[in-house]
Amino acid sequence: MKKAFDLEALTRPHINALTPYQPGEQPQGSDWVKLNTNENPYPASPKVAAAIAAEVGKLRLYPEPFSLKLREAIGQRHGLDAANVIIGNGSDDILNLITTAFAKDPGVGHTVPSYSLYPVVVGMADSRMIDVPFSREMKLYPQDIAAAEASVFFLTSPNAPTGVGFSRSTIRAVLEAIDGFLVVDEAYIDYGGETAIPLLQEFKNLIVVRTFSKSYGLAGLRVGFAVAVPEVISMLDRVRDVYNVDRLAQAGALAAFEDEHYFSERRADVISTRGRVAETFAKWGWFTYPSQTNFLFTEPRKPGSGPDAATALSLFEHLKRSRILIRYFPKHPLTCTFIRVSIGTDEQMDRFLQATEQWMQNV
Amino acid sequence: MKKAFDLEALTRPHINALTPYQPGEQPQGSDWVKLNTNENPYPASPKVAAAIAAEVGKLRLYPEPFSLKLREAIGQRHGLDAANVIIGNGSDDILNLITTAFAKDPGVGHTVPSYSLYPVVVGMADSRMIDVPFSREMKLYPQDIAAAEASVFFLTSPNAPTGVGFSRSTIRAVLEAIDGFLVVDEAYIDYGGETAIPLLQEFKNLIVVRTFSKSYGLAGLRVGFAVAVPEVISMLDRVRDVYNVDRLAQAGALAAFEDEHYFSERRADVISTRGRVAETFAKWGWFTYPSQTNFLFTEPRKPGSGPDAATALSLFEHLKRSRILIRYFPKHPLTCTFIRVSIGTDEQMDRFLQATEQWMQNV
Repeated sequence: MKKAFDLEALTRPHINALTPYQPGEQPQGSDWVKLNTNENPYPASPKVAAAIAAEVGKLRLYPEPFSLKLREAIGQRHGLDAANVIIGNGSDDILNLITTAFAKDPGVGHTVPSYSLYPVVVGMADSRMIDVPFSREMKLYPQDIAAAEASVFFLTSPNAPTGVGFSRSTIRAVLEAIDGFLVVDEAYIDYGGETAIPLLQEFKNLIVVRTFSKSYGLAGLRVGFAVAVPEVISMLDRVRDVYNVDRLAQAGALAAFEDEHYFSERRADVISTRGRVAETFAKWGWFTYPSQTNFLFTEPRKPGSGPDAATALSLFEHLKRSRILIRYFPKHPLTCTFIRVSIGTDEQMDRFLQATEQWMQNV
Repeated sequence: MKKAFDLEALTRPHINALTPYQPGEQPQGSDWVKLNTNENPYPASPKVAAAIAAEVGKLRLYPEPFSLKLREAIGQRHGLDAANVIIGNGSDDILNLITTAFAKDPGVGHTVPSYSLYPVVVGMADSRMIDVPFSREMKLYPQDIAAAEASVFFLTSPNAPTGVGFSRSTIRAVLEAIDGFLVVDEAYIDYGGETAIPLLQEFKNLIVVRTFSKSYGLAGLRVGFAVAVPEVISMLDRVRDVYNVDRLAQAGALAAFEDEHYFSERRADVISTRGRVAETFAKWGWFTYPSQTNFLFTEPRKPGSGPDAATALSLFEHLKRSRILIRYFPKHPLTCTFIRVSIGTDEQMDRFLQATEQWMQNV
């Protein structure tokens, strides 16, 4: 006798229990000022379009399965070999490979708050998430991370949503104190942080993850990478889908990576705009964490009131009514009084600042 | 005291034990006749290039996370809703989502021989692979599948590497006999098989998987899809990376899907060439399974000798020396006396047939 269909019973228990990742809103209309998902306000290098056009005629053939040209170019830039590099369908793919391969008892650690995808990939691997809480100063204490005894520890540096980077000497102290993997997620490194990559010479349990989504302006193409010692890369390749990165993504990312001049100019533009906006926040008396990223995490207030969660939510909602999207994280005491605003073009930030001033005056 | 780095100890035991998928060779030079990975010998619809070019300017923005336009178009074509459809980074992505969500004790079943990726995704999910062996007649016996009591059963129809399709009534009999999921992998369905999709009206435990890699000529773009009841699709979405399909892949696949005229013509070309090659094999006295795919699985022999494994290997090696790549599967008694040859253009198949005749004469 055939049983009645019962989806919950057919699903693995840890998947039934999983809370999926909630991405920032992706409105598809063009009249929004979109400052909510840390995209680059500038388009990718113009060389990307040409590289993609040259590859379109070959789409009937499977991609080169190792993204080897990209591995070579990235390795060379960092004084490493292709064997030190793996390419992912976005860095999210790589985070998932890491937990698939290495998530073991007693669990996987992360600092709180940080990137909300970590608990999702840990949950998918049926492992336990170990929280290491930040205090408001957002300092990293290596002994706290060591005490977690995690099989893998995710550290975003510079951190999100705060924008605060951690020094190489601090990261070295973490590596000296732990036996599990330290995954340094450098999604925002190009905007001012100190990279952990040189520490690969000393530590085999270091994996540094990066993305083309932010500084290279290719969020829509889904390319990320990690560097580690070759034996770790080989293990990640073992769980990687052999055709995880399509032909256009391989070609487009390589073209963007090689156009260093364009990259540097757009990065400088974002850093310059970030400085101007941070100064305005300071002038208004708002506390803002020092940012080494393409966003600012700031605690809004109106004259004579705030900061508090109601104030932050009120600004978020006011801006949304003005068709300006920023990010608000209501669930944690260290984030609920803040807003996170991505750095857009000067024109976009002027529109954001004007709408915010209007909100401030409306007491 | 920090321990010495021990990668095996840091890796999950089932990943240490995993045998990775071995893709067919992907030579990047252009002088090969590549008949080894069932790619389409014809380029994708010319509308694909235009759709991709129109999207390149938006790459700084994350993709629409649900590939909604593709879900709608695919749903509509099959008399279903967008809620019945999920899009993957290739159908391999979807096979992985299925085992991530649904692989449970006593394990996941497949017929043997079939697609060699199934044991890999099952191994990654730390589940057990249950083999249901074919005999040489390659018939499907629903009671054998029911006896496996698998949580998920992978059935490729038409099958690979044989090319033999299974009727909808046989698949219905399987669905009536099992309580777990039946995943019908219809990678090759457009070349003549009978689709299982209408059975979704009756069976909630059916998942039909397809790909744009073969009949749409987009192996290099990595787009696959599955159809199922909405609650099953929702569960797969829960384990899907939210940005698994990039902007160019979404746009390119949609353009190919909507160009039905071009699709039909190229499909007819392949079917016509397949018939001609199969007739030649028959004339030579070779046994070939009746193919409903874009490849032929045939048992080569020379006048007065074979078929046997040495003969098949000898042809494979002769062709490789002639820079013609086909596929040879030495590991299974039902495959080791055969070769699998993808259907190329008429010109490519002439080169293949000529080289093969040369081999036959060289007794």
